[in-house]
Amino acid sequence: MPKDDAHLITAHDVARHAGVSRSAVSRTFTPGASVAPHTRDKVLAAAQALGYQVNLIARTMNKGYSNFVGVVTAGFESPFRASLLSPITDALNKQGLMPLLMNADNPQQLEQSLHTLLSYQIAGVILTSASPPLSVVQHYLKHHIPVAMINRGHELEGADIIGSDNRGGGRLAAQTLLASGARRPAFIGQGLHNFSSRERWLGFSEGLAAAGITPLAVQDAAPGYEGGLAAVRHLFSGAVRPDALFCATDMLALGAMDGVRIEHHLAVPHDVQIIGFDDIPQAAHLAYRLTSLRQDSRELANSAVAAIVARRKNFLLPTPHRSIPVTLVRRNSTLE
Amino acid sequence: MPKDDAHLITAHDVARHAGVSRSAVSRTFTPGASVAPHTRDKVLAAAQALGYQVNLIARTMNKGYSNFVGVVTAGFESPFRASLLSPITDALNKQGLMPLLMNADNPQQLEQSLHTLLSYQIAGVILTSASPPLSVVQHYLKHHIPVAMINRGHELEGADIIGSDNRGGGRLAAQTLLASGARRPAFIGQGLHNFSSRERWLGFSEGLAAAGITPLAVQDAAPGYEGGLAAVRHLFSGAVRPDALFCATDMLALGAMDGVRIEHHLAVPHDVQIIGFDDIPQAAHLAYRLTSLRQDSRELANSAVAAIVARRKNFLLPTPHRSIPVTLVRRNSTLE
Repeated sequence: MPKDDAHLITAHDVARHAGVSRSAVSRTFTPGASVAPHTRDKVLAAAQALGYQVNLIARTMNKGYSNFVGVVTAGFESPFRASLLSPITDALNKQGLMPLLMNADNPQQLEQSLHTLLSYQIAGVILTSASPPLSVVQHYLKHHIPVAMINRGHELEGADIIGSDNRGGGRLAAQTLLASGARRPAFIGQGLHNFSSRERWLGFSEGLAAAGITPLAVQDAAPGYEGGLAAVRHLFSGAVRPDALFCATDMLALGAMDGVRIEHHLAVPHDVQIIGFDDIPQAAHLAYRLTSLRQDSRELANSAVAAIVARRKNFLLPTPHRSIPVTLVRRNSTLE
Repeated sequence: MPKDDAHLITAHDVARHAGVSRSAVSRTFTPGASVAPHTRDKVLAAAQALGYQVNLIARTMNKGYSNFVGVVTAGFESPFRASLLSPITDALNKQGLMPLLMNADNPQQLEQSLHTLLSYQIAGVILTSASPPLSVVQHYLKHHIPVAMINRGHELEGADIIGSDNRGGGRLAAQTLLASGARRPAFIGQGLHNFSSRERWLGFSEGLAAAGITPLAVQDAAPGYEGGLAAVRHLFSGAVRPDALFCATDMLALGAMDGVRIEHHLAVPHDVQIIGFDDIPQAAHLAYRLTSLRQDSRELANSAVAAIVARRKNFLLPTPHRSIPVTLVRRNSTLE
């Protein structure tokens, strides 16, 4: 029978009602702890019948930190960043942790959120965006709260850096385009201040230099589809036009491809070859069939969560850069 | 000078160090509270110098609930659902609340997460996905934790339902296609078990019936681009082909459009007109230029958060269905 006040029910009551040990009750309500499904069902049924719930807030106060991990992202509508959220959530859940979402699109609000989170004894922070101010994150490290950053540079002492092999991907793009006959390759990126974009450019220019080729142009663009479209308007306005484009993201590449085909009436890949980066789902659409360098979202997410968990145990671990390989996915925007 | 143990610093110490009132310190650390930027900066500088942080966990224990709101979503890679996350985060932040992200793609993990959250005294739950099991959410309502559901039916007593005018949108799609000459319209949806898809279908068939037109076909599809592509393979295999498609989502419509143009070599809109639903960013790509019914993500998000906040104050408020208007965005996939 449910009692009137759920807070009077103890784990002991639940164990007795379910006919299991006190420890089985505890494990059932400890995120990530192992418990037989049959036992777990009995405990949950008993807990529901009695109106029992664990007070994890109180538990957090005893343990010194909560099961929450801040996940800072910007541009949720970016398909690549969206593709990170699901594996990050999964990987955190497997460790008994939960993601608290923070939006870096509004820097002032983000700073407020990060300050608030500090007071919630969060277990760590994962940055999936290039934009949050490092000053606030530094504050976390000062309080010995682990910080993992995806696809960023070594800008912050003590933070874990997990990144795709952006530079190797850039080199591979150069080699692929040159092998299929490109002679006037151009790069479309998001400025040298953007770490991933810069690394992809450096790898691309290294790959071209190794074959004695100088890029025809390097074009800065605003992020996303519109940025790629605008970059192509600029690159194709002159007398000498690129015969190949390496774009720092797939969204830039989709915009570039539409610009090349629809606004300039050129054929992809015969007049212009295009390679993107990320391998978002839209790259596989029949309307695009974009050749792209695939980032391994799941491995990036798992590594970031593993870094938080390891540093939770030992905050003073070294912070080597973890580099996750990328793979070339060949589709129809490049020649054989 | 920082003291050794940050927990010994009080708000009073910070106020004195910053030269502001005790209440200014309190407002600086109360999410959503108003405080002059200049004052806030002085308080934050003093708090940092002294190593002060508010313990919100302790505050939660006094208040009875935390500042967290569970946000249950599935398919983060769905552009429409991704487009809800940013305005939900913004609207919560403005109320001093923060989103805890839960992934409904893994139902067992979700159930565990929902059970865990119950113990964190969360302020409410917002469902943006059709998939979470209502049994768990029912548990929340039993504990007087507000639940708001976006684009779902009245399946759960006591929950707030906020939805686009899915039925009106379906009627508008029918009127638009008929006005531009469609005589053999077909519908591609995601099954009658899916609330939004069913409502859009009901509106569409009402709109057709008003003009005395019977739909040529109603095709069930798997969600997303591949579903639309497969549906078109089926719909266009017979002797009598549709001359217009209304698709329950834009992702279905993009797949359908690629199937019609690339696999069946028909022209859009001249051979086949297509209307989608959602107005995701990709609908505006030059490669698609899809006519679509735009859902107002920001208004859906604001209404869901407002419902949580209102029910937090009075759990027994009535639960009228809040219907948010949709608008037709005309592009090139329909005839004038």
